[in-house]
Order: sequence, then C-alpha cells, then structure tokens
Amino acid sequence: VEAGNSEAVDALLEPLHAADIADLLEQIGPGDRRALLRLWSHEIDGEILSEISEDIREEVVEALPREVLVEAVRDLETDDVVDLLEDLEQPQQDIILEALEDADRVAVEQAMAYPEYSAGRLMQREVVVAPEHWTVGETIDFLRKADHLPDQFYHVILVDPRMKPVGYATLGRILSSGREAKLADITEDSFRTVQATDPEADVAYIFNQYHLISCPVVDEAGRLVGVITIDDAMNVLDEEHEEDMLRLAGVGDEASVNDGSVETAKQRLPWLVVNLGTASLSAMVISQFEATIAALVALAALMPIVASTGGIAGTQSLAVAVRALATRDLTQANAARVIWRELGAGILNGLGLALILGVAGSLIFGDWHLGLVLGMAMIVNQIVAALGGVLVPLTMNRLGMDPALASGTFVTTLTDVMGFFAFLGLATVILL
Amino acid sequence: VEAGNSEAVDALLEPLHAADIADLLEQIGPGDRRALLRLWSHEIDGEILSEISEDIREEVVEALPREVLVEAVRDLETDDVVDLLEDLEQPQQDIILEALEDADRVAVEQAMAYPEYSAGRLMQREVVVAPEHWTVGETIDFLRKADHLPDQFYHVILVDPRMKPVGYATLGRILSSGREAKLADITEDSFRTVQATDPEADVAYIFNQYHLISCPVVDEAGRLVGVITIDDAMNVLDEEHEEDMLRLAGVGDEASVNDGSVETAKQRLPWLVVNLGTASLSAMVISQFEATIAALVALAALMPIVASTGGIAGTQSLAVAVRALATRDLTQANAARVIWRELGAGILNGLGLALILGVAGSLIFGDWHLGLVLGMAMIVNQIVAALGGVLVPLTMNRLGMDPALASGTFVTTLTDVMGFFAFLGLATVILL
Repeated sequence: VEAGNSEAVDALLEPLHAADIADLLEQIGPGDRRALLRLWSHEIDGEILSEISEDIREEVVEALPREVLVEAVRDLETDDVVDLLEDLEQPQQDIILEALEDADRVAVEQAMAYPEYSAGRLMQREVVVAPEHWTVGETIDFLRKADHLPDQFYHVILVDPRMKPVGYATLGRILSSGREAKLADITEDSFRTVQATDPEADVAYIFNQYHLISCPVVDEAGRLVGVITIDDAMNVLDEEHEEDMLRLAGVGDEASVNDGSVETAKQRLPWLVVNLGTASLSAMVISQFEATIAALVALAALMPIVASTGGIAGTQSLAVAVRALATRDLTQANAARVIWRELGAGILNGLGLALILGVAGSLIFGDWHLGLVLGMAMIVNQIVAALGGVLVPLTMNRLGMDPALASGTFVTTLTDVMGFFAFLGLATVILL
Repeated sequence: VEAGNSEAVDALLEPLHAADIADLLEQIGPGDRRALLRLWSHEIDGEILSEISEDIREEVVEALPREVLVEAVRDLETDDVVDLLEDLEQPQQDIILEALEDADRVAVEQAMAYPEYSAGRLMQREVVVAPEHWTVGETIDFLRKADHLPDQFYHVILVDPRMKPVGYATLGRILSSGREAKLADITEDSFRTVQATDPEADVAYIFNQYHLISCPVVDEAGRLVGVITIDDAMNVLDEEHEEDMLRLAGVGDEASVNDGSVETAKQRLPWLVVNLGTASLSAMVISQFEATIAALVALAALMPIVASTGGIAGTQSLAVAVRALATRDLTQANAARVIWRELGAGILNGLGLALILGVAGSLIFGDWHLGLVLGMAMIVNQIVAALGGVLVPLTMNRLGMDPALASGTFVTTLTDVMGFFAFLGLATVILL
C-alpha cells in the first residue's frame, strides 16, 4: 500500500479514529512509517500526535513539515500540548511553543513549570467556573454565550470571589433543575480538590477510590488553576500498572515493543548484570559445599529443585504484596497481619511440598535420609520465600522506594542462596 | 475503639467516604470486623457494600441484619446490585432480589442472564434517551420533569423509533447550545456502541483507546439496553491488570491480602507443585552429566549462574510481550518484527554477559577453557530466553489462552533446562 499511491492511503486512513491511525503508525516498521508520513503528512492532526506512543513520537514530529506541526498543535487542549512537549527535545519544544497562541503558550509554559508526574502537568487549564451565588438559569445563559468551552467538561465549578473552588455541580443536575435553582444547592458531596504539586499517582488513586469524573486543581494558596478529567486519570493508572509490571520483571519502565534491538538490550542489561552478581553469591555458597557434592554427586542434580520452588513462592508472595501496596490495600494498619498470614501460608505449603518431594526422593533414591534433607530444606526455603516476598517490598516502601523496583531480584537471590544453603548444609550434616 | 462504644464509632465513621469505610472494614481483622458491624450495622448503606472487596463481601452481608441489607440495596443502581449479587451464594442472592422493587428486580435478573464478565453485566439499565428529532429545549424540559434520573450521566442518547441508538450529545454541548438547536446537529463523532455479550475486557479497551466517557449497550437486534460509564470501565481495566500481574507470578487471580493463611496456601500450591514437576526436568538434565560434575565439582557451583541469568532475561522479555498483548500493541502485524527484535537483543546481551562472565571465570579459575564454556552457554541461553519470552505468550494467545497464565513457569523451565544443558554439555565436550 505504501508504494507511493497517495490517494489510496487517503481513502484507507480517512475513516479511522486518531487512536487507530496512531496504532498503525506504531506497528509498521520505521521505513514504512517514514514513507507513510511523507505521503500523508498533510492530514496528521494534533489528536493523532497526542495518541502516538512516546517512544516514536519524536521520530514522527521530526518527519513532519513545520507548517503541518504548527497547524496540528493549535487545536489541542493545553494538557495534550504539555504531554506532547514532555517527550521532545528542546529545539522541537521551541518550534511548538512558538506555534501556539499567546494565551495558550503562557498556559503551557506554566504547566511545564510544575514537576514532572505532578497534577499540574496533567491538568487542563480550560475550566468552566461560575460564581457561587449563580442560579442554574444564569449558568446556562453564560454557557450559551461562552465562545471557548473545553471539548469535554462534566461539572461547573463554583468559585468564591478569590477563585477558590467551593464545590461543583454536575451538568446532569444543572440540566434537570429549574432555572431558578441556586447552583450552591445542587453541588455534589463527592467534591474534593488536589494540589497542583501532588504526584499524578495519588491523583489516579483518588479518582479510582472516590469514582470521580473530574477534579479541580488548586495552587498553594487554594486558588483554582485547572481541572483533571477521568480520561487522564485512567491513562495514569494504566501507565502505573505498566511501570509496576515491567519493573517487577526487571525491565526499564520505558520499554516498548516498538523499540529496536539495541535499545531493548540496553534497557535489560543493567538488571542482568546485577543478577550476574547475585548469582555469584549462590555460586559462592555452593562452592563451600564442594566436598559434600564430590561425595554425593546426585546432590548437584537435586539442589535446583529446592531453590527454584522457593523462587516461585517468593515471586507469588511478592506480586500480591506489590499489588496491594499499589492499591493501598496493604498499609501500616494491616502489615503485621499480612506478614503472619504469609508465614502461615509458607509453613503450610512448605509442609505440603516437603511431603511430596520427601516421599518421591526417598523412593527414587531408596534413601529416606535424602528425602528428609529435601523435605526439611523445602520447608525452610518456603518460609524464607513467603516472608521475603512481603518484607522486601514493605521495607523498600518504607524507605520511600518503589517496591516494584528490584524487589524481584532481591527476593530470588534470597531464595536461591537460602535454597542451596539449606539443602547442602542439611545434606552435609545428615548424609555424610 | 471497637470496645463497645457505639457513639464513638459513629462519630469516627460519620465523616468518611463510603470507599474509605470499606477499606477500613477490609483492613481490620475478622474479629474486629464482626464487632464493628454489630455496633454500626444500622449505618451501612448500599454504597459501602458495593465498595467492599469481593473476598470479604459475603462475610459482611451475612453479618448484617436482613432489614439493613434490604434498605441498603434499594438505593443502588442496577449495575451495582448486579456486581454485589455476583459474588454471593444463592440464598443471599434471593434475599436481595426480594428486597428490590419489581422494575429493578426484573432489570437485575435480565443483567444476570448475560454471561459473566460481559458488557451486559457491567452496564446500568438507567439510561437517558431522547427521540432523534428533539431540540435542546425539549430535552431540557424533559429532564427537568423526569423524576428518576441516574446519579451520573454524561450524554443524552438519541434513539430512533425502534430504540436503536443513532448518536449521542454531551451534556456540555446541550447546555451551551440554544434551545432551538436540534440534538441531531450536536452529536459527537466519537459515538460507538458495544454488544451486551461483548467481553468486558474489550469494553475497557474501547474506553481507553477512544477516550470514551460513556458507551451505549445494544442487544443482538441493535436496540438500546443500557449504558456503561467510564468509572466501570476503569474498574475493569484495574482488575484486568491485577489478573495479568498475579497470573504472571503464578498466583490465582482471586488472591488478596485479606485472605487467610490456608486460603493463600491453597491459591499458591498448584503452581508450586507444577514447578516441582518442571524443576525435576532440570534435575534430570543435570543427572545426565553426573560424570562431568564428579570430574570437576566446581561446575556444580557455576551452573546456576547461566540458568538464573537466563531466567531473568526470559522474565523481562515475557513481561514486555504480555503487556503489549494486553494493550494490543503486539499483533499479527508486528509479531515477526518483535521476534526479530528479541533475537537481536538476546544476542547482544548474550555477548555482553558472556564477555563479563567469560573473563571473570577465566581469571578466577585460571583456565580460559572454563571461561569459554561459561560464555558460550550464556549466549545460547540468552537467545533461548529472549525468544521463549515472546514465543510462549504469542503461542498461548494464538491458542485462545490468557498469555499471562502459566507463561512464567514455561519460560523459566525452558531457561533452566537450556541453561544447565548448554553449560554442562559444553563443559563435557570442551573441558573433559
């Protein structure tokens, strides 16, 4: 299709939603992408740009003629422009900033002044406000006359004379109330505000916890500076999820299927090297028992069983704990109970697995001493795994670090080292 | 606090949001929970019930006096009642169904007739519709007179005479247009509908992809049967993520920090037993090389390094692939390119790690043959890990299974077996 036929491309892409066009651009190869952009660049609008995933956005922006870019960003809302700018280099940022109208440029520059991943970056400046004493009728008349309303808004925010938000009324309530009703009488109980400097993860949590649709953002003085809508919060929630999942697996959280091999290799190498170091710890533990292994080589074949089952148990316990910390289901209040719970589960599964492995080991090798060693090592390591899986992320959280980061490596190192040590140590004592 | 002082409890809980009360009930122990419910049950309303997490909801419902329960469910919207019923046993379901008004009961029963995890279960029946020929003025007059509007609604859905939705208008557009404007002229481009039988995961994807706020649900004949709002979609997205994360870690997707030890142990045991089986595969591979290990016991200490680094690399590749499949960034269209990308990254990291490990091994053991074996085995296993991490989930996806399920176990078994085999095999050939 991308063989130069501009009309065919037009016909094909015309009916698609911006998000689908962005997906298409992401999924084709870099060569095809450049060809497609050359053919079709006049149709790229701001919406498509803001849908394109961060890792290829820079490439697309560079490929676009300047006038197309300028045209494209003009119809975006300020929060989308900010989102776009964040991932670009300085010279490209300047081109886009110049293209904006004065008022919008000031708004975008103010937003960029807030720290990254803060509510201030996430909010849109376009808000619909009404003085707190207005009636429904006055509000409707005002809205009918207003010539620049945001694309999407769900509430009218009531402000006092100093622009402090005091409540909000849903459009549904406004529409269904008589013209004489006072706005102040139909506000929602769910009203709450966030600070522009609050982390976006906290904002997403508040939306999810209290089922908000939109939320006013205030500065330190409590004055209204913008509003965050649920679609942005949903986006943050989605990104937080991605981050947790990729970090738990030891991948940089910028990882994407669109990256090239070299980039991918670079993202993953750091944790692999760390693992090389931690695996050497296991090797050192094992090397202490070379005499034992030399005396009974079968131990070398059996030792990974205890270690790897511990690794799985640790990962299970860890995933539940990291998730619970993220959703704030695991807090100071119930940490002690969760730790006891893990200990109990570790003991129970340790006993169960020890029974299976112990009996199987005894039967296969015809030596119940070996079965006993396998079983005892399994119990020890399951307990270590269960406790490690919850204590490591809790500790990292307490230290102000993301519990998803590195926890996986720490926990599996722990279970490997303990697995080998318990098994070979017990074997040395009992079998030799 | 829960020492019997009912007034103190009242004072404490009164100002809290339903979601926070639900969290509190989740985080205290079962004994305290029963005590609190006894003291405070008269204040439990439907909103709190629907906020409480599934795993303790049954317990709470059982603890409530019947008349409180009846009162509580009456003010819920039908989608929340359905959500509540899904997790309860038959006798409890019947009590709640009887408590509902006739019209609501029919609506709830119809929703329960849709398959679990379908759009039909997720939607609310309360919809705000207008004939397609209405004006803004007629709509506002209708809304002002309507006596039972949903708590939250964001669009007025336009329907044809046969109740087929033909478009929708945002409340913002309705409010800002003149009374004479025709609804049909101010509808949104983003309009799309979902089938009541569509899986809820697809619905969440559509909301996220197209930034929807609400979406009409139709039956097979295309008639409007309900509407899904973004807060429900956000919930589904959150649950889907939880499922992916827990399944990847080999934990049942019902796992929660509120479960007891026995329940936790039961959820985790199946994959641990599976791992016992797969780890035995590794043990069998190693036991084929007992003669090699007996000849050079240091090999026993070194062999876990290659295997565990492969495990990490496989987990990295797997997490990126599972996430990309979930967000539909990895499709048929780019699968081949992603596989090549993984192969490239595996070779690059394999070379890098081989260099480090090979040099370190040669220096520490004073034998470059050993370094060569370590390096070569590392390269082989990194390639197997990178490819396995993407091919296993792609294959499971093709077979219609959830790629997060079991992939982790398959991939680490693969890297363990290959890691031991490559290392010990090469050692046998080169060192002996």
